Amino acid sequence: MNGAESLVRTLVNGEVNVCFANPGTSEMHFVSALDRVEGVRCILGLFEGVVTGAADGYYRMTGKPAATLLHLGPGLGNGLSNLHNAKKARSGMVNIVGEHATYHVKHDAPLTADIEGVARPMSDWVKTSRASKAIAADGALAIEAARVAPGQIATLILPADTAWGEADGPAQVAKPAPPAGASADAIKAGARALQNGAAATLLLGNAALKGKALDWAGRIAAKTGCGLWSEAANARVERGAGRPPVAQLPFLVDPAVAALKNTRQLVLVGAKIPVAFFAYPNKPSVLIAPGCEVIHVAAAENDLEAALEALAGELNARDTPPLAHGSTFNVAPPAGPITLEGLGDILNALIPANAIVLDEAITSGRTFTEKTMGARPHDWLSIVGGSIGWGMAAAVGAALGAPDRKVVALLGDGSALYTQQALWTMAREQLDVTVVIFANRAYKVLFNELANVGAQAPGKNAISMLSLAAPAIDWLAIAKGFGAAASRATNLEELALEFKRALAHRGPYLVEVVF
Amino acid sequence: MNGAESLVRTLVNGEVNVCFANPGTSEMHFVSALDRVEGVRCILGLFEGVVTGAADGYYRMTGKPAATLLHLGPGLGNGLSNLHNAKKARSGMVNIVGEHATYHVKHDAPLTADIEGVARPMSDWVKTSRASKAIAADGALAIEAARVAPGQIATLILPADTAWGEADGPAQVAKPAPPAGASADAIKAGARALQNGAAATLLLGNAALKGKALDWAGRIAAKTGCGLWSEAANARVERGAGRPPVAQLPFLVDPAVAALKNTRQLVLVGAKIPVAFFAYPNKPSVLIAPGCEVIHVAAAENDLEAALEALAGELNARDTPPLAHGSTFNVAPPAGPITLEGLGDILNALIPANAIVLDEAITSGRTFTEKTMGARPHDWLSIVGGSIGWGMAAAVGAALGAPDRKVVALLGDGSALYTQQALWTMAREQLDVTVVIFANRAYKVLFNELANVGAQAPGKNAISMLSLAAPAIDWLAIAKGFGAAASRATNLEELALEFKRALAHRGPYLVEVVF
Repeated sequence: MNGAESLVRTLVNGEVNVCFANPGTSEMHFVSALDRVEGVRCILGLFEGVVTGAADGYYRMTGKPAATLLHLGPGLGNGLSNLHNAKKARSGMVNIVGEHATYHVKHDAPLTADIEGVARPMSDWVKTSRASKAIAADGALAIEAARVAPGQIATLILPADTAWGEADGPAQVAKPAPPAGASADAIKAGARALQNGAAATLLLGNAALKGKALDWAGRIAAKTGCGLWSEAANARVERGAGRPPVAQLPFLVDPAVAALKNTRQLVLVGAKIPVAFFAYPNKPSVLIAPGCEVIHVAAAENDLEAALEALAGELNARDTPPLAHGSTFNVAPPAGPITLEGLGDILNALIPANAIVLDEAITSGRTFTEKTMGARPHDWLSIVGGSIGWGMAAAVGAALGAPDRKVVALLGDGSALYTQQALWTMAREQLDVTVVIFANRAYKVLFNELANVGAQAPGKNAISMLSLAAPAIDWLAIAKGFGAAASRATNLEELALEFKRALAHRGPYLVEVVF
Repeated sequence: MNGAESLVRTLVNGEVNVCFANPGTSEMHFVSALDRVEGVRCILGLFEGVVTGAADGYYRMTGKPAATLLHLGPGLGNGLSNLHNAKKARSGMVNIVGEHATYHVKHDAPLTADIEGVARPMSDWVKTSRASKAIAADGALAIEAARVAPGQIATLILPADTAWGEADGPAQVAKPAPPAGASADAIKAGARALQNGAAATLLLGNAALKGKALDWAGRIAAKTGCGLWSEAANARVERGAGRPPVAQLPFLVDPAVAALKNTRQLVLVGAKIPVAFFAYPNKPSVLIAPGCEVIHVAAAENDLEAALEALAGELNARDTPPLAHGSTFNVAPPAGPITLEGLGDILNALIPANAIVLDEAITSGRTFTEKTMGARPHDWLSIVGGSIGWGMAAAVGAALGAPDRKVVALLGDGSALYTQQALWTMAREQLDVTVVIFANRAYKVLFNELANVGAQAPGKNAISMLSLAAPAIDWLAIAKGFGAAASRATNLEELALEFKRALAHRGPYLVEVVF
């Protein structure tokens, strides 16, 4: 058995059963080994941003790291942006990056680059495996690193001779250690804050936003009357009618400050102190009110379900029925010209039960999370790292991770243009994804931001850099190019019709919303 | 004047007159300044790989660095692959990468990343400017770094408060220092090798492949009978009928070894000792024959024209008429089913005079450089760093750098799928580019490489990672989606017809060659 095969068998031992890939020559022994070993499904992305974004989406839905297969430093470079998003979302994945044979690196062949240097800024763990007899053990370390709660980016660099040289066999992979518990003192401090009468907000992040953890949070809020918020962007929130109503902190500085201005005590469970997405002259970086006390009950690395259960116990809220949002979806979808309000209303009416919604709609989506709090129960996945080009790719992984659920990707046109190649993988794998492109034909957010910095009316250079209008992108043609079905909506009634058509379709279907 | 404006005015001082851009919020003050200052043309790329690839193509045709404008660490990450290609081609450019305000970085907002860490592997020069009064001087340093012969990647990181804070004004930019001359001893050693009777090859790289430098090389070869070769991939070669016939070293190991096996003395002018693109079991990394003597006359950093002139003088070849390849283009283009031979014959017959040809055709292009040695005179630009996704983007910059010349981009379908967004920039700017996509619907080179590593017939996983056949990409639809004209050819007579149609069209035109 060669090193490559020992690594593939180690992946199987570690329950890494999906490999999102865009390989090259230096990875051919690994590709060949994937053919000889049962247990790893290989999914091709036409561009590495699709590959790493898909692994992120997959982890968010399954809690299991996927592997990625990338081609040397530049291939890893193409995947960095979505590695950044995955790292900020605390997703786990195992990147396998091919490298020249160890003895070949010194010759500075064309594709030679400092792969560890490229990997480090967007990885939690990086290692170059130096010998074919060591690669299985290194692979096990990578998997173990990826599984450290709540998830880590592990990048294993695989020189070609490490892949083709003789190995002893696969390595065993240690079971993940359970996440550390929150301290009893922190729980008590949180409980005190939530019942001392001063205005308190429970701010949830990461795994606190789903399953039993969320249920405990709903009981705590019902019992104490505290505010119940999530961070502005979250890896995955279980929400909708019947679920605890967790409001999402606004993206923009002024509304976020307004949302938090009455909070005297901020109780953090899996969340960090809210900060502005960007700095602006004369606006704060930290969004909480002056004098607001911060209580760190548990961080994303902790066992958040246990922490919230303990907090509920401390508050005698274990048997309090959790807050549950009423249903708002039983309404007719709106008609008329497309407005941001109307887009939110359409989603509220039409998101199907158990859907997985990926939100990268940027300016078009400003009403979405508020309008859909009482929609049919669904999961909501946000672009946590803020680097656009995530949603189309993450939808691929989400659909593979949850093949029985409808995936709905809500994308700004500017964002979707970064990784539109994902449509091809959706078509090839017949992934059940409804892609909605909000085609305002601009980096609209940047026109707003240009005004925010005090610029006068945008001039020739600014317009050339912020407008996508000339020529208009034809998303129906692009979908056809990649083998996906598509249609267009230019008003709300058409959108309702086309959205329903897309949802009824099994497989990828793109709706271009022009406005 | 704020820091951003002082930087833009410094760019103008340094003759950086084009900015390939994909900005975000942190760059809005810089965008606004670009509106207030005359002298920088802004070109939007829908993805940062287009932006950095375009700057590479622009430098190769003009010898002038362009600026790029990129959005924080992830935006830079998206541009890394083509920065890698540009660095290996020794192109100069000035990357301006937005960063959070200096005081905001510590808050770890979503887009926060180690930008210097991302930049370093693919940059020759990196600096974060720490103050608005320093940014103009830092900008001048970046331009000076980019202009160091033969060209360097300079990355200047611009925190938002450095852009919006008060500045004193622009900085002056020092004129580039002339490149160092080769040593007299090296010239003499080269001359000895070329006339001592043992088989000698003159291997040219970088600026030795164009203009007067190439002319001197042609005289030297005519006088001495030495072999005249270029490296396997080159930033820009002036070639075709009437030009010195410089053969390109083959990409594959065995043919490259065969090409060099009789060379006893290898004389390097702007080139390095040839090495294998990848390592393979039981094949050499270094491609020259055992015992071959290597004479380093001049490196890419040196004044190659002066070195070759001096070498010609030493050899009494100054007045020897240079070798000139005969014309082969005056033939009818071939007909029949598409073959690699036939593709090369079509190019030989139809490449227009003075064309700029970008070659990223990978397996489809294996006959191209040999077949076109006697085509109408043209420039040939190769993907020097080997990271696919270059040609479509570099064509944008080449067309902007040489607006009166026809650009012909020859692309494998696998490669073109990395940066197909470049079609939109071509359409928007009405760039005169003929894009030919060789749609063999596979990473064909990898099927070959899989066989090279001794794998049996590819299995399910290998095929899923190497084939692009299902669904077939519809390039006509993709071109339409981005606003470019297109047509398809399925045999050589159709290709000749459609290629002529594309060449007669002013503006972007894509020909999909299906075989």
